[in-house]
Amino acid sequence: MTREFNPRVSIEQIEESEELAPKFDDDGLIPAVTTDYRSGELLMQGYMSAEALILTIQTGEAHYFSRSRKVLWHKGATSGLVQKVQELMIDDDQDCIWLKVDVIGGASCHVGYRSCFYRRIPLSDNSKPIRLEFTETEKVFDPVSIYGDIPNSTKL
Amino acid sequence: MTREFNPRVSIEQIEESEELAPKFDDDGLIPAVTTDYRSGELLMQGYMSAEALILTIQTGEAHYFSRSRKVLWHKGATSGLVQKVQELMIDDDQDCIWLKVDVIGGASCHVGYRSCFYRRIPLSDNSKPIRLEFTETEKVFDPVSIYGDIPNSTKL
Repeated sequence: MTREFNPRVSIEQIEESEELAPKFDDDGLIPAVTTDYRSGELLMQGYMSAEALILTIQTGEAHYFSRSRKVLWHKGATSGLVQKVQELMIDDDQDCIWLKVDVIGGASCHVGYRSCFYRRIPLSDNSKPIRLEFTETEKVFDPVSIYGDIPNSTKL
Repeated sequence: MTREFNPRVSIEQIEESEELAPKFDDDGLIPAVTTDYRSGELLMQGYMSAEALILTIQTGEAHYFSRSRKVLWHKGATSGLVQKVQELMIDDDQDCIWLKVDVIGGASCHVGYRSCFYRRIPLSDNSKPIRLEFTETEKVFDPVSIYGDIPNSTKL
């Protein structure tokens, strides 16, 4: 436990006090949800280590922990699409972080779309196969020109 | 793998096709982020099992998997605060679900606040201890009258 965080001592402390006492899971991570400060749109869902959370607080730029690469991840360090944190929130039981960010250019998705969430799952109780519906049709940047030959982060 | 989901065969299929091929982790879960359909506000972050995702698609009401109770969880079954799904999205690599929901009464937090995210973490690079800032001051319901003596879901 770093100096920045308090030990978790009671439900009242966690839920109703001003003490920052985040809960990290067995891997030392806490989920982080990132939305666009202006539109409210969900940009991504990731994870933070204690170090990533402290760096985010101290620098005002979103830091995560990349589970696939197993490293601290300063979002935008490669692409230039840094996320400037406008507001940082924590939830009732302090096991989830919410970042409201401003992204230069507005793009956050490694595929090139504005948001990572560019497909809708239609609701239906019938037995027809589900087909995803695209809600964005145009890419806002070309991933190849930004990322070059860095391996795609999507895992099968 | 149920009939509803496709096996994950290629990055192009996962990122650029209309096939629903969600990635469940080693525990059989996929993270789910839930925002208010109108305000865009983050209400909660949870997890879905395959069964929870299928039931959400089929019923239009949010279902999750409770990791603390280890059961399928029809949100609102106890409190009455059912989440009506207005739009259901999936992300680029299909390992995260976004639910935009309408909640009767607008409350989603077991502590009684409207959102689970009622405290801000101030950004700062100085060495003063961090104090959370409350952004909601009034509870929209009384958790005791809604939940009675059901044990608090917050874990130390």
